[in-house]
Amino acid sequence: MQFEEIRQKAYAANMQLPQLGLVLFTFGNASEADRKEGVFAIKPSGVAYEDLTPEKMVVVDFDGRTVSGTLNPSSDTQTHAVLYKHWKEIGGIVHTHSTYATSWAQAQKEIPIFGTTHADYNIANIPCALPMDDEMIKGNYEIQTGFQIIDHFKEHQLDHNEVEMILVGNHAPFTWGKNAHKAIHNSAVLEQVAKMAYLTLQINPQAPRLKQALMDKHYQRKHGPDSYYGQS
Amino acid sequence: MQFEEIRQKAYAANMQLPQLGLVLFTFGNASEADRKEGVFAIKPSGVAYEDLTPEKMVVVDFDGRTVSGTLNPSSDTQTHAVLYKHWKEIGGIVHTHSTYATSWAQAQKEIPIFGTTHADYNIANIPCALPMDDEMIKGNYEIQTGFQIIDHFKEHQLDHNEVEMILVGNHAPFTWGKNAHKAIHNSAVLEQVAKMAYLTLQINPQAPRLKQALMDKHYQRKHGPDSYYGQS
Amino acid sequence: MQFEEIRQKAYAANMQLPQLGLVLFTFGNASEADRKEGVFAIKPSGVAYEDLTPEKMVVVDFDGRTVSGTLNPSSDTQTHAVLYKHWKEIGGIVHTHSTYATSWAQAQKEIPIFGTTHADYNIANIPCALPMDDEMIKGNYEIQTGFQIIDHFKEHQLDHNEVEMILVGNHAPFTWGKNAHKAIHNSAVLEQVAKMAYLTLQINPQAPRLKQALMDKHYQRKHGPDSYYGQS
Amino acid sequence: MQFEEIRQKAYAANMQLPQLGLVLFTFGNASEADRKEGVFAIKPSGVAYEDLTPEKMVVVDFDGRTVSGTLNPSSDTQTHAVLYKHWKEIGGIVHTHSTYATSWAQAQKEIPIFGTTHADYNIANIPCALPMDDEMIKGNYEIQTGFQIIDHFKEHQLDHNEVEMILVGNHAPFTWGKNAHKAIHNSAVLEQVAKMAYLTLQINPQAPRLKQALMDKHYQRKHGPDSYYGQS
Repeated sequence: MQFEEIRQKAYAANMQLPQLGLVLFTFGNASEADRKEGVFAIKPSGVAYEDLTPEKMVVVDFDGRTVSGTLNPSSDTQTHAVLYKHWKEIGGIVHTHSTYATSWAQAQKEIPIFGTTHADYNIANIPCALPMDDEMIKGNYEIQTGFQIIDHFKEHQLDHNEVEMILVGNHAPFTWGKNAHKAIHNSAVLEQVAKMAYLTLQINPQAPRLKQALMDKHYQRKHGPDSYYGQS
Repeated sequence: MQFEEIRQKAYAANMQLPQLGLVLFTFGNASEADRKEGVFAIKPSGVAYEDLTPEKMVVVDFDGRTVSGTLNPSSDTQTHAVLYKHWKEIGGIVHTHSTYATSWAQAQKEIPIFGTTHADYNIANIPCALPMDDEMIKGNYEIQTGFQIIDHFKEHQLDHNEVEMILVGNHAPFTWGKNAHKAIHNSAVLEQVAKMAYLTLQINPQAPRLKQALMDKHYQRKHGPDSYYGQS
Repeated sequence: MQFEEIRQKAYAANMQLPQLGLVLFTFGNASEADRKEGVFAIKPSGVAYEDLTPEKMVVVDFDGRTVSGTLNPSSDTQTHAVLYKHWKEIGGIVHTHSTYATSWAQAQKEIPIFGTTHADYNIANIPCALPMDDEMIKGNYEIQTGFQIIDHFKEHQLDHNEVEMILVGNHAPFTWGKNAHKAIHNSAVLEQVAKMAYLTLQINPQAPRLKQALMDKHYQRKHGPDSYYGQS
Repeated sequence: MQFEEIRQKAYAANMQLPQLGLVLFTFGNASEADRKEGVFAIKPSGVAYEDLTPEKMVVVDFDGRTVSGTLNPSSDTQTHAVLYKHWKEIGGIVHTHSTYATSWAQAQKEIPIFGTTHADYNIANIPCALPMDDEMIKGNYEIQTGFQIIDHFKEHQLDHNEVEMILVGNHAPFTWGKNAHKAIHNSAVLEQVAKMAYLTLQINPQAPRLKQALMDKHYQRKHGPDSYYGQS
């Protein structure tokens, strides 16, 4: 099997989506990139998770052209391609319609940072890109979705290496990371953070954002130069 | 076994209802039609899912008369019959009391179209038929439920080939499609859309409906002549 | 084993409670009566469901005195005894702290009848007895809980053969029926009705109660002399 | 294996966390103390539950110094150590980011006592410690979290033998008990109480607290000198 390693990794990541309760039917996809070869493996479009195999993953280059595979790639493939092309450090991307994150996206609201669960991952609100212009929609919609994400990060001076997730307004979340495994992890965390932020505001509509000192502390203990979480 | 194919398909569809978390006990039923024979197979009334077999499915004609089978058909059989009789293109019908869709039906509210998950299926609000007149209730209630649905579609100029689901006010949802499998799929999607629309409004009571251009785009990419979702 | 039949039935009913998601740890109990012998079998107090056996069920008379069994019966035994003693037709009782029903009990609100799911079981709001007087609490609390339930039915002219469930204010639900199996069924239905009524009011705080004609229709088709639900 | 007994017990308790739905990924930890040896066994930091073994538990003294084990202990180890050092009677501690309890902590609200489920465990609101001062955060954060908890109990004249749980504002819950098994039990109860209190206020924002006589009664029947819950 050609591109075996990324096919295996993309397959494994896609299979985690239903296990983590992040997708209904085929409403999600994960991809894993091979930076040296300039390609990524992604789920074929509309194929049920129980019918997936590593062989069925489609390999596509960063301009969205199929390089290997007989099935149509995910209809969101062009969005993945744009992100890989412009953000050189990322190695995995995940798109879901997970319940709570998608509801925040539909509400067109950023997810406020209310606690340390969120701060362990990033110390900004989870961004929400507003729905794109009609002109962009009528163009190549999936390519434009990629630029919508990249432009939102630029305009709001967010660093995609620190904030590895976004809500696309009226649509649903995208997450990324050094590989597909980390992007899946981020999708599950995002869903949990989205659920708890929702509940927090129901309990206390005036709930204050996390104070700056706690943001810094929690983020640093997982990610700073003196981080002391985990085993290395 | 007579009518083996539709009995098998109706059986398989009914068994999916508890697996997808769409029913408690026996609160739901699915049917599959054979258009050539002018009949459909439906769940027997009040039989637990774990006791179902394909043989126990009851075969009924489009006037609601039992053609084959020894058990009583579902108490909702007449509603299925009316829909099959008037809507010639559909091959499967599902009725559930799934949690979120039923709550919208009890609230007597249409489900607003808030996102692309919804638009991938249809580009209208999910309709909600108001409770029927007392006279209709006292007549043949289940037949009238069928007409309540058909009349609602007529009055609101909805096309049952495009919008394959409805909430019956104070009652619960019905979905349909080219076969029972697709109708079950629609029931699961409706439940997820209903849950996310509920959460969206809790997060932002002023959440805007999906913009027209996005509605058109998402629907077209799955259903239009140039659709590019899936494998064919 | 003495009283084998009711011990087996009480055991089977208790084991359904965790399977139906109605209890956390030991927060619930079910009993089955033998009307001829004037006794009932009930769960022992504080024993984990995974350690239960039919033999461990405690058999108690309708004055709450242990007749057979070496373990202490459930701390709610006296409440069961009072209900069996005064309501001659019932053969099973279940008490849980199920999430949504208990939340309505804590809110000290009746559950309004919003839809046909509810009307298939009874055509009244689910009653909620207000917390008892301090004097009653300081007396024999569990016996008084039984009278609190019976008195509430008398005062509100409710028939315990038609309405087989109640919320005890600040506490949690009790359900009953012709046997423990039916009482468990009622507990699961109550939890689902409680959840959907909660959601209905979140979606539409002005949601109207079910109209009278629909109440009558649904209840009659399951329970009236011309009922046509099920197989007999 | 050194300290086998507490390693086994800490392991078993940690493994219950995902089974009870209280943690996502590695967002939680449990420890078990050996009071004679002055040490406790705790989960290693950032290790997935499926990779845990009793041998991997890290044994630490009450000043937070590793005594046995090759892995880094949980990043929350210093908080556990402070609590064990100052509260001599406790033998187990659990920290989770469970959904509803964490949402109350993020909302910075005590959980009001609304019902008997809560009163069976303690007869106070579940306390919520406000986020600590910036100075404390910048110091040894995890040690300060321990003092934040102890100080909150002192200031509010709460007894840690009666109230075995707290929400740390903007962060998440801690629970404790005579051993890790009881602390886990308390974490699950806290999550359920937190969920039902949330729902209670959604149903009735004016829901009254549990009346004093019921608080006393329920607590005494489980914990008083004449308690009559359970088998001893």
